[in-house]
Amino acid sequence: MSGRHHLFIPGPSNLPDRVLRAMDRPTIDHRGPTFRALTFEMQRRLRWVFGCAGPVITYPASGSGAWEAAMVNTLSPGDKVLMCETGQFATLWHDIAGRLGLEAELIAGDWRHGADAEAIGAQLQADTGHTIKAVCVVHNETSTGCTSDIAAVRRAMDAAGHPALLMVDTISSLGSLPYRADDWGVDVTIAGSQKGLMLPPGLSFNAVSPKALAASETAKLPKSYWAWQPMIALNEKGFFPYTPATNTLYGVIEALKMMEEEGLDAIFARHARHAAATRAAAAAWGLELQCADPAQASDVLTTLRVPEGHSADALRATALERFDLSLGNGLGRLADKVFRIGHLGDLNDLSLMSAISGVEMSLGLVGIPHRKGGVLAAMDVLAGAPEAMAERGAA
Amino acid sequence: MSGRHHLFIPGPSNLPDRVLRAMDRPTIDHRGPTFRALTFEMQRRLRWVFGCAGPVITYPASGSGAWEAAMVNTLSPGDKVLMCETGQFATLWHDIAGRLGLEAELIAGDWRHGADAEAIGAQLQADTGHTIKAVCVVHNETSTGCTSDIAAVRRAMDAAGHPALLMVDTISSLGSLPYRADDWGVDVTIAGSQKGLMLPPGLSFNAVSPKALAASETAKLPKSYWAWQPMIALNEKGFFPYTPATNTLYGVIEALKMMEEEGLDAIFARHARHAAATRAAAAAWGLELQCADPAQASDVLTTLRVPEGHSADALRATALERFDLSLGNGLGRLADKVFRIGHLGDLNDLSLMSAISGVEMSLGLVGIPHRKGGVLAAMDVLAGAPEAMAERGAA
Amino acid sequence: MSGRHHLFIPGPSNLPDRVLRAMDRPTIDHRGPTFRALTFEMQRRLRWVFGCAGPVITYPASGSGAWEAAMVNTLSPGDKVLMCETGQFATLWHDIAGRLGLEAELIAGDWRHGADAEAIGAQLQADTGHTIKAVCVVHNETSTGCTSDIAAVRRAMDAAGHPALLMVDTISSLGSLPYRADDWGVDVTIAGSQKGLMLPPGLSFNAVSPKALAASETAKLPKSYWAWQPMIALNEKGFFPYTPATNTLYGVIEALKMMEEEGLDAIFARHARHAAATRAAAAAWGLELQCADPAQASDVLTTLRVPEGHSADALRATALERFDLSLGNGLGRLADKVFRIGHLGDLNDLSLMSAISGVEMSLGLVGIPHRKGGVLAAMDVLAGAPEAMAERGAA
Amino acid sequence: MSGRHHLFIPGPSNLPDRVLRAMDRPTIDHRGPTFRALTFEMQRRLRWVFGCAGPVITYPASGSGAWEAAMVNTLSPGDKVLMCETGQFATLWHDIAGRLGLEAELIAGDWRHGADAEAIGAQLQADTGHTIKAVCVVHNETSTGCTSDIAAVRRAMDAAGHPALLMVDTISSLGSLPYRADDWGVDVTIAGSQKGLMLPPGLSFNAVSPKALAASETAKLPKSYWAWQPMIALNEKGFFPYTPATNTLYGVIEALKMMEEEGLDAIFARHARHAAATRAAAAAWGLELQCADPAQASDVLTTLRVPEGHSADALRATALERFDLSLGNGLGRLADKVFRIGHLGDLNDLSLMSAISGVEMSLGLVGIPHRKGGVLAAMDVLAGAPEAMAERGAA
Repeated sequence: MSGRHHLFIPGPSNLPDRVLRAMDRPTIDHRGPTFRALTFEMQRRLRWVFGCAGPVITYPASGSGAWEAAMVNTLSPGDKVLMCETGQFATLWHDIAGRLGLEAELIAGDWRHGADAEAIGAQLQADTGHTIKAVCVVHNETSTGCTSDIAAVRRAMDAAGHPALLMVDTISSLGSLPYRADDWGVDVTIAGSQKGLMLPPGLSFNAVSPKALAASETAKLPKSYWAWQPMIALNEKGFFPYTPATNTLYGVIEALKMMEEEGLDAIFARHARHAAATRAAAAAWGLELQCADPAQASDVLTTLRVPEGHSADALRATALERFDLSLGNGLGRLADKVFRIGHLGDLNDLSLMSAISGVEMSLGLVGIPHRKGGVLAAMDVLAGAPEAMAERGAA
Repeated sequence: MSGRHHLFIPGPSNLPDRVLRAMDRPTIDHRGPTFRALTFEMQRRLRWVFGCAGPVITYPASGSGAWEAAMVNTLSPGDKVLMCETGQFATLWHDIAGRLGLEAELIAGDWRHGADAEAIGAQLQADTGHTIKAVCVVHNETSTGCTSDIAAVRRAMDAAGHPALLMVDTISSLGSLPYRADDWGVDVTIAGSQKGLMLPPGLSFNAVSPKALAASETAKLPKSYWAWQPMIALNEKGFFPYTPATNTLYGVIEALKMMEEEGLDAIFARHARHAAATRAAAAAWGLELQCADPAQASDVLTTLRVPEGHSADALRATALERFDLSLGNGLGRLADKVFRIGHLGDLNDLSLMSAISGVEMSLGLVGIPHRKGGVLAAMDVLAGAPEAMAERGAA
Repeated sequence: MSGRHHLFIPGPSNLPDRVLRAMDRPTIDHRGPTFRALTFEMQRRLRWVFGCAGPVITYPASGSGAWEAAMVNTLSPGDKVLMCETGQFATLWHDIAGRLGLEAELIAGDWRHGADAEAIGAQLQADTGHTIKAVCVVHNETSTGCTSDIAAVRRAMDAAGHPALLMVDTISSLGSLPYRADDWGVDVTIAGSQKGLMLPPGLSFNAVSPKALAASETAKLPKSYWAWQPMIALNEKGFFPYTPATNTLYGVIEALKMMEEEGLDAIFARHARHAAATRAAAAAWGLELQCADPAQASDVLTTLRVPEGHSADALRATALERFDLSLGNGLGRLADKVFRIGHLGDLNDLSLMSAISGVEMSLGLVGIPHRKGGVLAAMDVLAGAPEAMAERGAA
Repeated sequence: MSGRHHLFIPGPSNLPDRVLRAMDRPTIDHRGPTFRALTFEMQRRLRWVFGCAGPVITYPASGSGAWEAAMVNTLSPGDKVLMCETGQFATLWHDIAGRLGLEAELIAGDWRHGADAEAIGAQLQADTGHTIKAVCVVHNETSTGCTSDIAAVRRAMDAAGHPALLMVDTISSLGSLPYRADDWGVDVTIAGSQKGLMLPPGLSFNAVSPKALAASETAKLPKSYWAWQPMIALNEKGFFPYTPATNTLYGVIEALKMMEEEGLDAIFARHARHAAATRAAAAAWGLELQCADPAQASDVLTTLRVPEGHSADALRATALERFDLSLGNGLGRLADKVFRIGHLGDLNDLSLMSAISGVEMSLGLVGIPHRKGGVLAAMDVLAGAPEAMAERGAA
């Protein structure tokens, strides 16, 4: 096929050439002075994007590894954790907790909303014995396109006066949605490289609060690879306890430089613009969003439902075959019922128009009932005053 | 700005990553055995894309250098050449002929049509003394988006029984429009790297017929750098008379491999599809094409006129600033009156939709009168049966 | 500093441009058909290099992660494992086993020899109750430059009629030294990307025998990220249970293609040539090898002792500052007493001469007593008949 | 073959990864604002490396094109030019002059010395009618490894009070040897991209003095592609009269940034160090230098004679086959009698040692009589105090 592939899954996101070129360099000695300088710069830049003052631990691992790391460093066998069933990724995290020997309670959800801060608060208030050791929330549920209000969860925890740790999965939100680990009192922020950070997959992160660090002193789940302590100790000297993924680290620095150049507020405003345009297209087509609460609709991705009796996967196959367009599939119970348009990372208006026009043509080709003109609706948003949009995005 | 730049000028065209990566290699000894193999492979592949059996000479030079080369190798001071004023590039070629000491006659044109084969025939028939030594035609006039029918010019020359050489500028057509140097009796085909061949600028070509080669034996214009004879002699051994642009040559081979994989017919059909979609958008917008004859409308680029009293350059500036979209400017007498959309080289449907949506939004932002819905018209073409389009393209 | 850095640590090794360029590509959908084909090709090529018929599991992780994976998948809390103190890496592995809750027994060693197959056999014969569940051996101890004879360990286990699993760390040997997982009856082979496989760090591997797979059915150590079962199940469909490190996977395929082109026997012979040249230089300089048994001297790296009262790290610092040459440092108890020259991965004779001349000049500059002429001794080896060397290497 | 190729021809030189990566970027609109900024930065940096205040013209062409450009812009048919037969490249330039219709006089030379400033002065003094319009000298004769003293030529011209233009070929010296166009009163400096500038071949340059520019007003040789006037006029606006070789221009800027970072004096000192080491090796081997005057021996390359009855090309073939080492061949009358070691561009001590050890081993393998130990002699130079060398180099 001619031309560039159109990647609009909700991560891995599109890699900027600058990031790819930065990684296209010889590997260096991970115990030498050049590497040390790289570690220090990376840590400084990572703290900036997480909004935290404490250590950010970088694993050569997928995001699921960072979930595991957050738990094995802070919890002991049989500890109780509270989770919210926001969708597939919250469910997976819950499964992991169980496999590690934790008692994981899942507040049921309909996969169409973010985490229910009130329900969390109620559970914590009922837990007078403080048996719940951690509350685990997915900031942006990549399967549904719903966000959770982390600041509200924090307030609910504070209102309950409960000492549980707050762990937040920002794998698909960090660098795309406003996030402030310290301001929101998050104890462990879990993140990955391949979404808003515009990097290839292969790295994941734990940003750790002092409270979480203290918990790690007594946590009893067995751990070696994921152990924070040796990582923090060596990172402070500029090194790692095992051979780090050096070339991807080159990319981290370049990506965070690019983000600094654009500015976090501008980045968030851009994501808001693109999400608004995508939702306008969906509305024009007459397709329902999986996210039932407009206030929770994600600026990272949009999950669209296809009408009963139609196949989202058939649409995706046509988009791929005819237009070299990759769309995200429905996960778990949403399989074949939804498709997902990622509008995160290194993206601009006209690239988004590629995706929207590709979806509109594919809807027609595959025979899913819809109204034409999603592209026009999206263009109306994108051709609107960018400042206004920026404000809306930043708000 | 975030995301990829949208380059839709009519050349340089978008470079495939494969071509960029192929060039991203150490330079090798241009007198060694690896280089020799590279030269032979390149020559074989170049003959394929030109449709010729004779030598193809590769200069480290722009296309204008290859124009000069064609003339200094075959002509003598004061020789008469016949040209057609199809637009800016034909005019520049005419100027070059003059600067080199040739007597260049220009059949006047309106910059809205291709070369007039009948007029050429008439001139040649009138030239009973055979003072005209060469007929020079631009296959695809990049300033206007009009093509010239080279086979028809050949027939007119044959009908006149005139021995003039036929020189054709395919700088913006080779690899995008059907072209067959030998079948059409072209004596010197002039081409460049940065258009249909999907390469960076910096190389240009002369594909040479036996008749042109014979003419070069007696041509008296001074020449050194452009001289065919030492080039051909050394190329036959796998080398060059001066240090060639090795890294770009790596790219030539990779680009021609990609073209072989896609197939020339498929490539031409794709260009036809994209041109049809672009013209459909123009019609929907109500913008006039610069090319006045639909049969001559180029599949390489589309030149659109803005209504009197409006500025094409203002449109282009808005497209660039707001949407990171580069459109081609009006050249020479068309300055600010037209803009050009290149749809050549490494391109696919959804990338074209980027450009078309960017133009539509920019038309609105800059206040050029137009009807909305060019994007819908383009999508109707692109979502049509690809086979049918392919046939139309190849026809 | 001008020119290329000279990286001669025993891994990460030098990355071929072909591998770097292969990774310099957009990330693709890890749930799409192109990715599936990539997974299948990668698995086929990995089995070839491991010499195994069973599954090879690929983790986004460092080699230490793959150690952990081997144990948590096959063992239960309190299980006994037998290890040999061949050097720093064997010691680290032993520490990990302890942290995971295993009872790890370490056969003491002097850090100057490989694993003692006889001692292993004796321990197993004494273990009549079969309480030892796994024997863990480091094939190439990267801290000392000593190899262990895996086939001999296998024979000792068989002679003892003991059912323990055999786990082998080939992190720094795979692709550099002859290795045959199935032929030698290895149950879990642990490997990493950044050594003989000529890849950046960030991936590690478990090649798994049917016996190990059976053990994983009943193993009770908690696990989620490292769990083989979901990995194998999804790999069989061409996918992964979590987002894989796609861009590094591109590199895996390219590196293994290169290895197939060169041929494993030729690769091993080349490593043997380079090791012989390096040892010849060491002998000429009068520096002692850390490896006390010439039959166990590694073809991957050479660890040289500096005379008492001299600092290996001072030598390394001079080599780095004056000659942009990175040498490996002494690890653990060998700190500052030895330096290590890696001669693995993508290397050839003249690049090795860079390192040897850099070491010789640095020895002089830093005032370590030595005889000049190590370079001449190395050249005598390298200019010798390559076929003879190849035979020696393959022997 | 494993590992990196060892390229030690006297140009094209080794490309730094930074330069290759800088070129590995999409081509941009050569008529847009980003390109304009690029042109201005490039011009500023080029003037710095040439040591001139006037325009530097950049051609997509080889160095031989820039020779032609220098002449066609300043001279008229039949004009007399004075040249010195320093070697193959001076001879080629002389041939070009003849082909362009100039009367080119060549002061005979033995190919073992630089240009004879005294002889030039004598010729000019004898030319009382000022029929000589230009003196053309090769600064660094790449075929012989002899340099010419340009300042001395200037003094001789001044002493003769002769108004001829001074044209200097710095193709293989610019960026490697001290050069100051304005200080030395050079009217046209001819240069190329692929040597000291660490770029791929494909660009060449004319740095033009006001006097040369004045001459171009009346020069009558036909020209179009090479014409300075339109180039200068458009360059001043940030553009080019024809599509420039954009991607190589990216490389120009990156290479000149690197040169600024290292510093010209440091670069020249480095070349002097490497040349001294190479000559020390040659002396140790007992091989004669082609350059007969040590004061003229080039710091860019060293041309070594093989003893009568031996074949330099056999040596080169062995170096290539056995050690993947490319050495420069003997050109013209020196074919098979000499080989050339390039030590220019992006190079450091240990890479040079690769070449020297490769030559020493190849001398042995091919049976050319020599003494062993060239490597030791080179190391003695390279391990010497770098400051001392730097001073020697800068002197």
